[in-house]
Amino acid sequence: MVLQEQEIAFVREVLPFWKDLTETQRSELIDHMRPRSFARGDHLHAGEADCSGVFLLRSGQVRTFIISDSGREITLFRLFERDICIFSASCMMPNINFDVYIDAEKDTETLLIPTCAYKALSAQSPAVKEYTAQLIASRFSDVMWMLEQALFQSFDKRLAAFLLEQRNIEDSLTLRLTHEEIAKHLGSAREVVTRMLKVFQDQGMVKLSRGGIEIIEPRQLEQLAE
Amino acid sequence: MVLQEQEIAFVREVLPFWKDLTETQRSELIDHMRPRSFARGDHLHAGEADCSGVFLLRSGQVRTFIISDSGREITLFRLFERDICIFSASCMMPNINFDVYIDAEKDTETLLIPTCAYKALSAQSPAVKEYTAQLIASRFSDVMWMLEQALFQSFDKRLAAFLLEQRNIEDSLTLRLTHEEIAKHLGSAREVVTRMLKVFQDQGMVKLSRGGIEIIEPRQLEQLAE
Repeated sequence: MVLQEQEIAFVREVLPFWKDLTETQRSELIDHMRPRSFARGDHLHAGEADCSGVFLLRSGQVRTFIISDSGREITLFRLFERDICIFSASCMMPNINFDVYIDAEKDTETLLIPTCAYKALSAQSPAVKEYTAQLIASRFSDVMWMLEQALFQSFDKRLAAFLLEQRNIEDSLTLRLTHEEIAKHLGSAREVVTRMLKVFQDQGMVKLSRGGIEIIEPRQLEQLAE
Repeated sequence: MVLQEQEIAFVREVLPFWKDLTETQRSELIDHMRPRSFARGDHLHAGEADCSGVFLLRSGQVRTFIISDSGREITLFRLFERDICIFSASCMMPNINFDVYIDAEKDTETLLIPTCAYKALSAQSPAVKEYTAQLIASRFSDVMWMLEQALFQSFDKRLAAFLLEQRNIEDSLTLRLTHEEIAKHLGSAREVVTRMLKVFQDQGMVKLSRGGIEIIEPRQLEQLAE
């Protein structure tokens, strides 16, 4: 057994199917799990080349995104502490035939259930299968939300909503983000982000500085995003 | 029992979980099923207001799409003969929390498994649950494909690909489609479609006429779409 007591307590807490497992299944699962740490910018998963398994996020933040042939990126959804990252085990799901990438946005501590262990558990436990299906459906809903934003919302609204989301995540009006990073979240180009941020600055909603964006008028941004 | 012999034979053929059902489950399922016909343009499902159940397509063609607040549409995927339409039962899936619309693109014959019957069967049969999960994962993959096209492909390539898809569906180089209909498939505006079709016509790839588009140079369209 590699996991420590407090890590096992965490697993018990965040896995909804824990209560449905037998004692043997529980101990086998714990035996297979490993702590994995990622620094900001590290890849947890890089397309079909990877299939590490299911990551339980103990701390930190990751983003799941897609990349176009020409290298453009767009964020599908982000995961936080206590979230479960399932697309890093997508090779075990025959009908999921698209490639996603998963990067750490902050230093991130995880516990990994390797694909083979998760697959074996799924085969034994209907509760695990059911949980996987629910998780996939949730991510599908996340992606549909993003899709509607990306296709139907004007860019100024999307940028305003993103800045507010970021404020909520950071719990701060000062956002440490480059224009390039924002562009990758929104599937846009750096120049487009810079141009719109300057419009926001002219309207007194934000103040731009080297390496950061300060939100001056959150209410105005909220009105725009609505 | 409302279904006729040949309809029951069809059910046996297209439902992958039929072999896993007990005799009682099979006869209950058949007892609950009803034939439903839709004319071209009819709605099979209109957002969260509807939850008829699972449609088995005996003939015809349907498209699943989303609508923006301002009435813009984009097609997520299309279903054909022998396909199973599951989003018309999405109210029974707690983690699917987005609204889709489903319209008949041609006169369409279906067999309906009402939501309550499908739900009851799912609760009894792991094979049905598993099949539902697989189907949702497949549709997720369909939507991801569309998403990548819509976000990362230029409009001329998408239009060329759509015309070729339509040729394959109709098995004809003469397509009976309005520019408005194409715009709704691609999440665009009619004017944009018309403008691009005129460019295609100038390049000798298509010939436009009242109510139709004739593909003159499929090879050129293929090169463009690639």
